[in-house]
Amino acid sequence: MNTLTMKGHAPDHFRWEESDGVAVVTLTGAERKNPLTFDSYAELRDTFRALAYAEDVKAVVLTGSGENFCSGGDVRDIIGPLTGMDMAGLLRFTRMTGDLVKAIRACPQPVIAAIDGVCVGAGAAIATASDIRLGTPGAKVAFLFTRVGLAGCDMGCCAMLPRIVGQGRASELLFTGRSMRAEEGERWGFFNRLVEPDALREEATALAANLANGPNFAHGMTKTMLNQEWNMSLEAAIESEAQAQAICMQTRDFERAYRAFMEKRSPEFEGD
Amino acid sequence: MNTLTMKGHAPDHFRWEESDGVAVVTLTGAERKNPLTFDSYAELRDTFRALAYAEDVKAVVLTGSGENFCSGGDVRDIIGPLTGMDMAGLLRFTRMTGDLVKAIRACPQPVIAAIDGVCVGAGAAIATASDIRLGTPGAKVAFLFTRVGLAGCDMGCCAMLPRIVGQGRASELLFTGRSMRAEEGERWGFFNRLVEPDALREEATALAANLANGPNFAHGMTKTMLNQEWNMSLEAAIESEAQAQAICMQTRDFERAYRAFMEKRSPEFEGD
Amino acid sequence: MNTLTMKGHAPDHFRWEESDGVAVVTLTGAERKNPLTFDSYAELRDTFRALAYAEDVKAVVLTGSGENFCSGGDVRDIIGPLTGMDMAGLLRFTRMTGDLVKAIRACPQPVIAAIDGVCVGAGAAIATASDIRLGTPGAKVAFLFTRVGLAGCDMGCCAMLPRIVGQGRASELLFTGRSMRAEEGERWGFFNRLVEPDALREEATALAANLANGPNFAHGMTKTMLNQEWNMSLEAAIESEAQAQAICMQTRDFERAYRAFMEKRSPEFEGD
Repeated sequence: MNTLTMKGHAPDHFRWEESDGVAVVTLTGAERKNPLTFDSYAELRDTFRALAYAEDVKAVVLTGSGENFCSGGDVRDIIGPLTGMDMAGLLRFTRMTGDLVKAIRACPQPVIAAIDGVCVGAGAAIATASDIRLGTPGAKVAFLFTRVGLAGCDMGCCAMLPRIVGQGRASELLFTGRSMRAEEGERWGFFNRLVEPDALREEATALAANLANGPNFAHGMTKTMLNQEWNMSLEAAIESEAQAQAICMQTRDFERAYRAFMEKRSPEFEGD
Repeated sequence: MNTLTMKGHAPDHFRWEESDGVAVVTLTGAERKNPLTFDSYAELRDTFRALAYAEDVKAVVLTGSGENFCSGGDVRDIIGPLTGMDMAGLLRFTRMTGDLVKAIRACPQPVIAAIDGVCVGAGAAIATASDIRLGTPGAKVAFLFTRVGLAGCDMGCCAMLPRIVGQGRASELLFTGRSMRAEEGERWGFFNRLVEPDALREEATALAANLANGPNFAHGMTKTMLNQEWNMSLEAAIESEAQAQAICMQTRDFERAYRAFMEKRSPEFEGD
Repeated sequence: MNTLTMKGHAPDHFRWEESDGVAVVTLTGAERKNPLTFDSYAELRDTFRALAYAEDVKAVVLTGSGENFCSGGDVRDIIGPLTGMDMAGLLRFTRMTGDLVKAIRACPQPVIAAIDGVCVGAGAAIATASDIRLGTPGAKVAFLFTRVGLAGCDMGCCAMLPRIVGQGRASELLFTGRSMRAEEGERWGFFNRLVEPDALREEATALAANLANGPNFAHGMTKTMLNQEWNMSLEAAIESEAQAQAICMQTRDFERAYRAFMEKRSPEFEGD
């Protein structure tokens, strides 16, 4: 049986804070711009997998420390060893990184990436896998796999990025590995909005708190269906939504909203 | 056998006007911002289903009365009863609303939504299901299902909205239920353009008339293929288009266009 | 066995230049704005098919002559004969045009369309099938199939255009056949950027040269996966990318990049 709480969660390779149903995951290692390592990949994957069952976390903020988001897979710690690995080892690694993205998508909590400074490689991939992205004017996002001799198809980026910014812009970013400027990112729909660096964490947490106070069962269904309908026919998607929404109509939150409306007050959702 | 004309169509729960092949559907109930009711849902669904066989309607304008588009499912008339329904009843309802979207997508006529003021909930969903959207600077679109304790996956919105405005923007709108400002809607591709409120109906009708005067058989095929290719592989889509376009090349409209070109005049299309 | 080089390629119906791994395809017939003919369609299709096996071409620029990109299928030479053809002949033609798009998508080289002036009909379709698009302020792109009595579903446009500019904008362009202005094209993600006409060819070639100097095996994999993941579930896409990227991690280019990084110099990729 899986644990139903994140209480006591104390990861070794990133910072974890939880308050009022909002968890903040802060990538660490500011002196190297918060790189991912074999250990932090695995621990992030396990954390997001645990979130799938956690009843006490309602929304997640994913951010970096020291004015950067994430420099991606560390060149010395990850790329070095990979150059000497056999196919079984390589596939074990790329599947682990993919599993992190799968876990970010599969947890019912909305994940809000709060992005300042450098956000590149696998860092850009986990930002892309998030549901909502806030950036700063200084955010620099690059899918720079090509710079290390690799393809743009890393951790699902060839599937996700075209859906976010369009196929043409995604193609350029993935083929060239160039930086997307913050202003481009906002204009193209990568960033939901830009805020000043010193307001970033606060704004992201406020948005997460706002969602955490919402109808969480329904939010989880929204996320599930955004994933499910990824490659469904429109006809099938509409039937799937008819079923999913009918399920949500049996929650008490739906009734709470109705009563609050009739009594001319704001609803208080409890997530059931 | 289905009727092949909309002549005499006289719905009880919305206004229906038809002139020169352009039908205008006007949602009514201005004092409550044109809410949808069980009856209007069903009648709209039946109307769009009938349009699939109607030979005398070539394009449809969908709009609201009294400076608003639609306030969605009425809280008293719809949400109240739903809170007391069993699963069979709920599913009957969500499938009916989904069937309205299916019918809007399935009719061969291009559907142009003309949106001023409030456009929320199920109102936002039918706007999203339309082919082309004109807005006004005062249009306020909100997928506010979350505000009544429900999920964003309503009437196909989790499938359609990401394809229109991108996955990141759609996620924010569906999770938060916040209003999309008219200017955002234009910038993001939800609105094809914004016009002043007093020009809205006229501009939408002019665009519809323009399409109605075009090669209607081919327009219907364009719409069919936009639906069909929703989740097809690119290879399969190209073969499907080869077949669909070859069919259109056997219409007389194709020959009419060729002759008009050779005789240096504008073609007159007849839709066959 | 297929030839592995484009050396000596001398097409009759368009201009072909190759230098340092960058091929430039220039559509000709400036006096009629570079129309496509039965012959040039077939020769372009065969050329892009040959590129799939060519080891000496790493990137392709596709452009027009005389300040226009392409006026599409020639009315006299193509549309005239089509009006008299039977279904077998029509299907042979639409499949051939579709095969050109399939070949543009299937070759591993990134294809950069450099678009000035008129870019309409089948010309707009091959621009849409390209990976990256540079335009000029005077570029006029129109999917004007509807103007000749046909549907917007030509050569994959109903599948590709919505993914590039969004479903709503694509619907309008395909139903109306209207010109997309250059500024709209940039804002909507059709053009990756706009440059002045006299810099267009140079900028496109510089971008192609830049990609040609990159890790070509990986670039080919990026393109393959952008195609493959078109209608895959997100889960399946992530697994596919894990496999594809693991393959790229066995290239020498990956190791070259790592060594260059450790020795604090720029990597020199060789495409293997």
